[in-house]
Amino acid sequence: MNIRLLQLPERTAKPRQYGLTMVMDKGLSIREAEDMLSASADYIDVVKLGWATSYFFPRLREKLAVYKEAGIPTYFGGTFFEAFIVRGQFDDYMRLLEEYDMEYVEVSDGSIEIPHDEKCAYIQRLAQSYRVLSEVGSKDAEKILAPYQWIELMQAELGAGAWKVIGEARESGNVGLFRETGEVRQGLVKEIIHSIPAERIIWEAPQKSQQVWFIKQVGANVNLGNIAPNEVIPLETIRHGLRGDTFDWFLHKSK
Amino acid sequence: MNIRLLQLPERTAKPRQYGLTMVMDKGLSIREAEDMLSASADYIDVVKLGWATSYFFPRLREKLAVYKEAGIPTYFGGTFFEAFIVRGQFDDYMRLLEEYDMEYVEVSDGSIEIPHDEKCAYIQRLAQSYRVLSEVGSKDAEKILAPYQWIELMQAELGAGAWKVIGEARESGNVGLFRETGEVRQGLVKEIIHSIPAERIIWEAPQKSQQVWFIKQVGANVNLGNIAPNEVIPLETIRHGLRGDTFDWFLHKSK
Amino acid sequence: MNIRLLQLPERTAKPRQYGLTMVMDKGLSIREAEDMLSASADYIDVVKLGWATSYFFPRLREKLAVYKEAGIPTYFGGTFFEAFIVRGQFDDYMRLLEEYDMEYVEVSDGSIEIPHDEKCAYIQRLAQSYRVLSEVGSKDAEKILAPYQWIELMQAELGAGAWKVIGEARESGNVGLFRETGEVRQGLVKEIIHSIPAERIIWEAPQKSQQVWFIKQVGANVNLGNIAPNEVIPLETIRHGLRGDTFDWFLHKSK
Repeated sequence: MNIRLLQLPERTAKPRQYGLTMVMDKGLSIREAEDMLSASADYIDVVKLGWATSYFFPRLREKLAVYKEAGIPTYFGGTFFEAFIVRGQFDDYMRLLEEYDMEYVEVSDGSIEIPHDEKCAYIQRLAQSYRVLSEVGSKDAEKILAPYQWIELMQAELGAGAWKVIGEARESGNVGLFRETGEVRQGLVKEIIHSIPAERIIWEAPQKSQQVWFIKQVGANVNLGNIAPNEVIPLETIRHGLRGDTFDWFLHKSK
Repeated sequence: MNIRLLQLPERTAKPRQYGLTMVMDKGLSIREAEDMLSASADYIDVVKLGWATSYFFPRLREKLAVYKEAGIPTYFGGTFFEAFIVRGQFDDYMRLLEEYDMEYVEVSDGSIEIPHDEKCAYIQRLAQSYRVLSEVGSKDAEKILAPYQWIELMQAELGAGAWKVIGEARESGNVGLFRETGEVRQGLVKEIIHSIPAERIIWEAPQKSQQVWFIKQVGANVNLGNIAPNEVIPLETIRHGLRGDTFDWFLHKSK
Repeated sequence: MNIRLLQLPERTAKPRQYGLTMVMDKGLSIREAEDMLSASADYIDVVKLGWATSYFFPRLREKLAVYKEAGIPTYFGGTFFEAFIVRGQFDDYMRLLEEYDMEYVEVSDGSIEIPHDEKCAYIQRLAQSYRVLSEVGSKDAEKILAPYQWIELMQAELGAGAWKVIGEARESGNVGLFRETGEVRQGLVKEIIHSIPAERIIWEAPQKSQQVWFIKQVGANVNLGNIAPNEVIPLETIRHGLRGDTFDWFLHKSK
């Protein structure tokens, strides 16, 4: 738009290192992916092909090309990595990454249990050829880590070469960083923010109330993930204080 | 269909003054908008471009043309108006309306506080050039108005020149007319219906249970808003007593 | 994908008699239907045109052709059948089935009350020309049948010629087989499974937690229905133990 609103928060611009929006594609058709990009490519920094959905997608190479042409990197969800690891097929996973010409890779242990130094060894090895996102937090609602544990794990994974660490929440936003109701574990998140640079963390925050909380807490440019395709533009309005939820907050802040 | 069901309720036909369905577009791509129209244009009377999403949509002019060609008027969500007002940029908003050749405009105070005569002055001024929808009710779940206050505000806004007044509910349907659970504030709505002609009110009712309640209360042709794109045809079945929720009710009524 | 994961459950292949995924189309545009098929036709065995939505769809013949070309049978939701029955228009419904060249038909009594032998007579008559799916269970949350009643009804309907019987859940998954919260009525379902061959039942299970429960209970190839278009590939991952929810369960089972 030519006509501009005054006093908007400063947003980082592409290619962003901070202020990232990571979208979850859990099986979009090629045309649906194109549609999403035609409306909101400017606001999407990276696309995760959710968990193992890629395994069942019939024209994966073609879809990856659509994202590549739009300049948006993609990666397979961590559960896919774990499915290979648990079967002793890490070499097959390496071949897969090569065959599909991936540039990013996720390393996670949300569904499997592996010693943390082993996880870090995977990060280290993959970081030689790929940009690694490593995820902390279990998909199991009963496995609760203390804040200091989250922080130690994150620091070790960044130390092993991860580009960003991801705070687990699943597609639904009700484990890891969040209670079963979707409510943010505020004490946990504040502890993490206190110890890890905000630029290095991507917070999975699929629900609007979660996005609002992180933006108010960390700022317009907090890195957020697991955003649904049709929520990218709505998220951008929340970041800018142009939706009811952050309208007031931003105006007070900018005074 | 050539084969017709007997004893269906009488639905108003386009161009409707009553029996309106207002759809919320919160960032549909051009092709998604076309898809929606190809399936359900006959049942859509007006499209709201949700809150400030238009500000971030890359090919807005093209999308507006798609709706215009289908004969469906559009308007910017009220929060967008408020974002200009709160920054003292009303003149810019006027330019914006002109630049995009809008015919409808929403005036609201869901996120800002302005004296009511000032709000009515905006309605009056805009009504000279545009068809005005004015919205009553706060997006803040804590700001509860008594029924007589809703009614006074609505009457004043219609008096100032509003074409329709809108009862606030947000995209999610959990403020204003509804409790946090999405349940209808029945006493409130019945009071309003008693005092304001049903034709003049659009009820935001994004949830199915809310749509069902209003249809049973007011009739097949109640004006409903904030309908999601993929809920337009389902809503039409509910209006006609052809979904489980209103199936019984309609048959009993038509006896 | 050329690179295969080891130790996956055996899935039946098309044309499936067991391991069916039935998708609910509640008004997809032609292009949206094409999109869904381009991504997941291999995993869709049958499409239900939800309740009476077909009555309002403007280019129905064209949409049916899209599904037919993909080799996927379709049928009108049972509420549509009931709308004709309750108006004494069964003959019109027969003409409708013929006019649209349908091969499958649903017989249900979720919104109307008819004697069960009358329902079975409809099944018998329609089974002469069509593949019949008959549905058991009311859309009314207050009408609770005992397990032995479900079983008797299902047996009688299969005896009358139904190809499969469907366990009712609606689009939302909160009646019939499920409590209002969406929780599975486990005792009920286990009783049914004990008495009716799993191949003959399609369980409506729109919510992920419901799909997970049935897969863990019955197996990867349980017949599931009312799956949303964008949940077909996610469901396939759950069936294969490749989503967090069934990841562990499948590995333990396959040991």
